Amino acid sequence: MKRRTLSVLVHNSPGVLNRVAGLFSRRGYNIESLNVGMTDNPELSCLTILVDADPASIEQVTKQLHKLIDVIKISDITEEATVDRELVLFKVRADSPIRAEIMQIASIFRARIVDFGRRSLIIEVTGDHQKINAIEQSLKPFGIMEMIRTGVISMVRGKS
Amino acid sequence: MKRRTLSVLVHNSPGVLNRVAGLFSRRGYNIESLNVGMTDNPELSCLTILVDADPASIEQVTKQLHKLIDVIKISDITEEATVDRELVLFKVRADSPIRAEIMQIASIFRARIVDFGRRSLIIEVTGDHQKINAIEQSLKPFGIMEMIRTGVISMVRGKS
Repeated sequence: MKRRTLSVLVHNSPGVLNRVAGLFSRRGYNIESLNVGMTDNPELSCLTILVDADPASIEQVTKQLHKLIDVIKISDITEEATVDRELVLFKVRADSPIRAEIMQIASIFRARIVDFGRRSLIIEVTGDHQKINAIEQSLKPFGIMEMIRTGVISMVRGKS
Repeated sequence: MKRRTLSVLVHNSPGVLNRVAGLFSRRGYNIESLNVGMTDNPELSCLTILVDADPASIEQVTKQLHKLIDVIKISDITEEATVDRELVLFKVRADSPIRAEIMQIASIFRARIVDFGRRSLIIEVTGDHQKINAIEQSLKPFGIMEMIRTGVISMVRGKS
């Protein structure tokens, strides 16, 4: 089983998320990451769903998804050349003696310090899974007090 | 009615998203933005939910959420001092004569060019709602071919 990425365009209506997520959960698939993102059309949202499933099962789920009234378009973009990005906020313990070291790590990962408390920093970083895991490992020894990840969004690259 | 931000800590189990989203949709609330983010504990996820509702209704929904077995903690962080961030990818039409101008806009908004096609660029930018809307307005005249937003994640600031 491989992680597959589905991009699903839907109408914004109460319950659409519920119905889409339900199709996966009834089959026992755990959605690893899901985003409900706005698009350039205020009436439509774009769901980016990462799910561990084999291609055959995904095809089944896709067929079911197509039957939902609010679902407009489903793309399995697993095999496409994509830009995959996720946003993460880390709150890290940072008493003054170790602040410089943390700021150095942030700079290596092109991360940004977005809050500066007396005993903690909040660091904002974007990247793919690998980069996020790498910075997480680097920050762990200092004490991660809180971490929130948006989940991944994927966009197919332009033809070169 | 004001937009409220709920942060909900849940166990990762198939269907939990379904059950949480269902509570809102059954009451006719349209979830404006929702994120299922991983946390530092691989068994837990953090949902950040933006929903238009008055405080009294939110209190009702919160009570119902507490009854769900996989829900661990619910915080209404609307009134707290928070860092609110969203990640957006824009694919913009960019034939070579206007590339420089687009790159200038990107630099003003501290955005990053993450893909460079023959006729398009992909721009990555993070910020709050206002900043995202501002860059969207600036890019619109060039032709936004595609836009994906992660939805907002919120983290309570450290005590200063």
